[in-house]
Amino acid sequence: MKLPIIEDTYAEAFNTKAAHLLITAATKNLAFTAATEATGFATSFIGCPAEAGIDKYISPDKTPDNRPGYSIIICQNKIKQVEQQLLERIGQCVLTTATTSVFNLLPDCDNNTNLGFKLAFFADGYQEKVEKYGKTLYKIPIMSGDFLIEEDFGITNAVAGGNLFIMAKTQQSALVAAEAAVNAIKEISGVICPFPGGIVASGSKVGSKKYKFMNATTNEGYCPTLKDRISDSKLPEDAEGVYEIVFDGLTEESISKATQVAIKAIKTIPGVIKISAGNYGGNLGKYKINLIE
Amino acid sequence: MKLPIIEDTYAEAFNTKAAHLLITAATKNLAFTAATEATGFATSFIGCPAEAGIDKYISPDKTPDNRPGYSIIICQNKIKQVEQQLLERIGQCVLTTATTSVFNLLPDCDNNTNLGFKLAFFADGYQEKVEKYGKTLYKIPIMSGDFLIEEDFGITNAVAGGNLFIMAKTQQSALVAAEAAVNAIKEISGVICPFPGGIVASGSKVGSKKYKFMNATTNEGYCPTLKDRISDSKLPEDAEGVYEIVFDGLTEESISKATQVAIKAIKTIPGVIKISAGNYGGNLGKYKINLIE
Amino acid sequence: MKLPIIEDTYAEAFNTKAAHLLITAATKNLAFTAATEATGFATSFIGCPAEAGIDKYISPDKTPDNRPGYSIIICQNKIKQVEQQLLERIGQCVLTTATTSVFNLLPDCDNNTNLGFKLAFFADGYQEKVEKYGKTLYKIPIMSGDFLIEEDFGITNAVAGGNLFIMAKTQQSALVAAEAAVNAIKEISGVICPFPGGIVASGSKVGSKKYKFMNATTNEGYCPTLKDRISDSKLPEDAEGVYEIVFDGLTEESISKATQVAIKAIKTIPGVIKISAGNYGGNLGKYKINLIE
Amino acid sequence: MKLPIIEDTYAEAFNTKAAHLLITAATKNLAFTAATEATGFATSFIGCPAEAGIDKYISPDKTPDNRPGYSIIICQNKIKQVEQQLLERIGQCVLTTATTSVFNLLPDCDNNTNLGFKLAFFADGYQEKVEKYGKTLYKIPIMSGDFLIEEDFGITNAVAGGNLFIMAKTQQSALVAAEAAVNAIKEISGVICPFPGGIVASGSKVGSKKYKFMNATTNEGYCPTLKDRISDSKLPEDAEGVYEIVFDGLTEESISKATQVAIKAIKTIPGVIKISAGNYGGNLGKYKINLIE
Repeated sequence: MKLPIIEDTYAEAFNTKAAHLLITAATKNLAFTAATEATGFATSFIGCPAEAGIDKYISPDKTPDNRPGYSIIICQNKIKQVEQQLLERIGQCVLTTATTSVFNLLPDCDNNTNLGFKLAFFADGYQEKVEKYGKTLYKIPIMSGDFLIEEDFGITNAVAGGNLFIMAKTQQSALVAAEAAVNAIKEISGVICPFPGGIVASGSKVGSKKYKFMNATTNEGYCPTLKDRISDSKLPEDAEGVYEIVFDGLTEESISKATQVAIKAIKTIPGVIKISAGNYGGNLGKYKINLIE
Repeated sequence: MKLPIIEDTYAEAFNTKAAHLLITAATKNLAFTAATEATGFATSFIGCPAEAGIDKYISPDKTPDNRPGYSIIICQNKIKQVEQQLLERIGQCVLTTATTSVFNLLPDCDNNTNLGFKLAFFADGYQEKVEKYGKTLYKIPIMSGDFLIEEDFGITNAVAGGNLFIMAKTQQSALVAAEAAVNAIKEISGVICPFPGGIVASGSKVGSKKYKFMNATTNEGYCPTLKDRISDSKLPEDAEGVYEIVFDGLTEESISKATQVAIKAIKTIPGVIKISAGNYGGNLGKYKINLIE
Repeated sequence: MKLPIIEDTYAEAFNTKAAHLLITAATKNLAFTAATEATGFATSFIGCPAEAGIDKYISPDKTPDNRPGYSIIICQNKIKQVEQQLLERIGQCVLTTATTSVFNLLPDCDNNTNLGFKLAFFADGYQEKVEKYGKTLYKIPIMSGDFLIEEDFGITNAVAGGNLFIMAKTQQSALVAAEAAVNAIKEISGVICPFPGGIVASGSKVGSKKYKFMNATTNEGYCPTLKDRISDSKLPEDAEGVYEIVFDGLTEESISKATQVAIKAIKTIPGVIKISAGNYGGNLGKYKINLIE
Repeated sequence: MKLPIIEDTYAEAFNTKAAHLLITAATKNLAFTAATEATGFATSFIGCPAEAGIDKYISPDKTPDNRPGYSIIICQNKIKQVEQQLLERIGQCVLTTATTSVFNLLPDCDNNTNLGFKLAFFADGYQEKVEKYGKTLYKIPIMSGDFLIEEDFGITNAVAGGNLFIMAKTQQSALVAAEAAVNAIKEISGVICPFPGGIVASGSKVGSKKYKFMNATTNEGYCPTLKDRISDSKLPEDAEGVYEIVFDGLTEESISKATQVAIKAIKTIPGVIKISAGNYGGNLGKYKINLIE
């Protein structure tokens, strides 16, 4: 099997703010349902109210209440915006899911929001502050029983915009390679792939050549169907399929690790020609994530 | 098996506005991924930017492009808000998903939005208006290939707030009965269950008895853990589990049908004691959906 | 998108015997679990005790007990063998699954087996013969409650060995095209794809050139990694990926329909070069299923 | 929440023989598909050709080929039978699944079978013995590319018949508790739950009171619908739902660990009244697995 060329370049990543939460439930499936709804409509800051995603499955032997859970990460660029997103997404999408509880995964954070205290007003006076599992929680009576949520949740500095471009002989080879990369990144704690299935089909450039009102437009240099219509295509001659993967993480180190495990995974799929990444010459983002270590 | 009592009451439902779209993709799984992301963070108008959900799977023999698809419904209370939600949710969550196309399922609507025309600016001048499958579409070159989306999408009057309360001997009996109800409603075209997994764990009343700033608080009369603390519990003595299901539909008739198939499905699960529904005395909503026909 | 060449050939299919059953359960997931276990280890008569698979999902409005279900087909070459497989697979894999019931989908069959009567001995004297849903059923008390199974199940003539070969520019394009074909065949009632995920990665020829004790060996003419080592490769020059799909059905007509919807689905995937099928010159099987109608 | 009573008894477990294998594939889903088919129709020695199941997901950073995988266990009571099951199940259900490879997880076993050598005859002379990943493998050219399988696979002594009985106020509470138990056991390496979804709906006693030809019949003492018809029901008065879980493992220690994590998980589900286990007075099996340590 011919291995892909790895371009000697870097992904340019940015500062952001993030919360890291654990959602547990009676069954793995219910925890997943809550995590999915709470992180939906959250692929990109460009047009979504947040970037969010499932971090990983946490087995019952590793959760405070011995139930299965999923950790999620919710990012926004300002602390106030993260607080607002938490209030709406946990209040509307997790409190409403059968049998869930919510725990803070950033216990030693400098900055905290009292999300549990605020959501507890939903109990209309019947809320109780309780100590359980060595934590301070609020107990909110609901139809499902009692909803438990930790009082405080940390909001930390984080890194958004880790990315890789995967170019392959066919659309499907690029797609399966992207799927393999996203699956490998699931093993890196504290990293999410916020796009649908973790994959970006429509990678963009900043701004537009033609429309001033557009903040982001298609990255035409990487569009297979434009290869013969433009003079500056960046695609290898025989590449007919391209996908980007984008990942946000709690630390620069986790983004670097995710990049390396993703590359290793992509190499297992036949038909991939080249791996690259998106950057803006280092002018916009604080972090340069090298593809070749 | 003892059958549940069906209370002789009605669910009170409201006017809203809705779009009805079909998302197709190369695989059933990719179409589902796009539909899930596009309808995420959309359980309730109270704290979400929309109410949205998957309507049903559409097999490849019934789609314009012979690929598997999912129909979705996106609701908001004003036409302008539906337009905004479409732009953001389809632009960020479907255009970005590998191999998708998007079609309008309300071809004969009085009111339309040219969503395809607007999203096509993403192509930065490379977009093309094409006639295909007997429809007017825009072709947008992206990394994945060409993204196809219909030019116009209808926005119609719809009905929100169909609901049922399920009271059972245990939390899990109520939960499985709710799951059975949601699964049965999937067969009714044009109806969605916007909450996570279709089920509401934390059914609410309008306003609050204690906190003026709260628009909605826990429906304490249906909370099993408050049964002995309040004087006006509405729960049967032996009920320890309650779930609500909520559904939005394109017509009053579809909400009535959904109500009936849901009740039929709930009856198949042992341990359910009573089925009821939420209303406000008929003062708030336009529609009364009777439980007993 | 360049469409694949469809070879003007036919798949050669064979007579077999089959049972067609409906498994219902409290949830869609439990019905699926039972159907999956009951049709496992059943890809090919060559080395499995049966060929079996899930036919399709049957929604609660279309089942006798208003619960969700899956129809399955179990094939063997002799009636006695089908009877034996039913006894073992339904007794060990469906009776044991939480909340299931089993119904006969071949009510007007000339040949029947009293599977329900036989399995009812498990009740050790507590079984009851009951009339319900207009059918004669046995009620078997188990830990889960009462297991219901119809008394008689038809065993009919059926057709095995419908097949298609999919050759593509990459392994992944062939794979996704095969997945699309299998998904499309799901819509044809009475047809199953018995191999894992419906797809055959290791299509075989009858017998062996080298080992007399082998009944079936690799179909080297369609192996991409042997293209340059053998003189009679049947692969197009640029084909690096090949998959076969195999399907069994209750009638010749259903196999023909499955062939056509599969071809239509394969055409939606880019990178496919050629579609063909396997036959033995018409000497072995009774049915010739043409690719081009 | 009221916790269940744990009966001071033991599960009686038996000697068996087992193989432990790793199946990897291009995607997590394909590896799961192969593992599911290969372990299907394998719930109980009473009427299935094996007891088999998925052990756990193995992430790409922990597999020899950096691809996602699932470990499976296949049990039979004699070494020859395990060998036969391996030949048929791996040959028919894994070799046939797209993109798979198969590795031995018992490298230091006293007893081995050269499964890879035997299956390689399928290559009809084109097989190659290769050294890769520090292992001796066979490379078999197939349509999908090259299938890789290790030469030797260990067959070890193992323990079958670990079990727990879960009695609850409703069928659904017992069911969700059983699901929680099975999910918790997934974290214990080297243990499988061979029944559908890991759960037994129709727990049996050895032999029959009424029919001499029956090896196993319903365990009437634990049937909720027989509670009032028999004099020696073992069910608590208010128990309307019972499920058994059964697990096989590579060591007695792993079965004990599985028992404890299962009990811990069951305790998280409301409505469970009692946990017990099945034994034969210690006369039949070699191992006594105590519920209370």
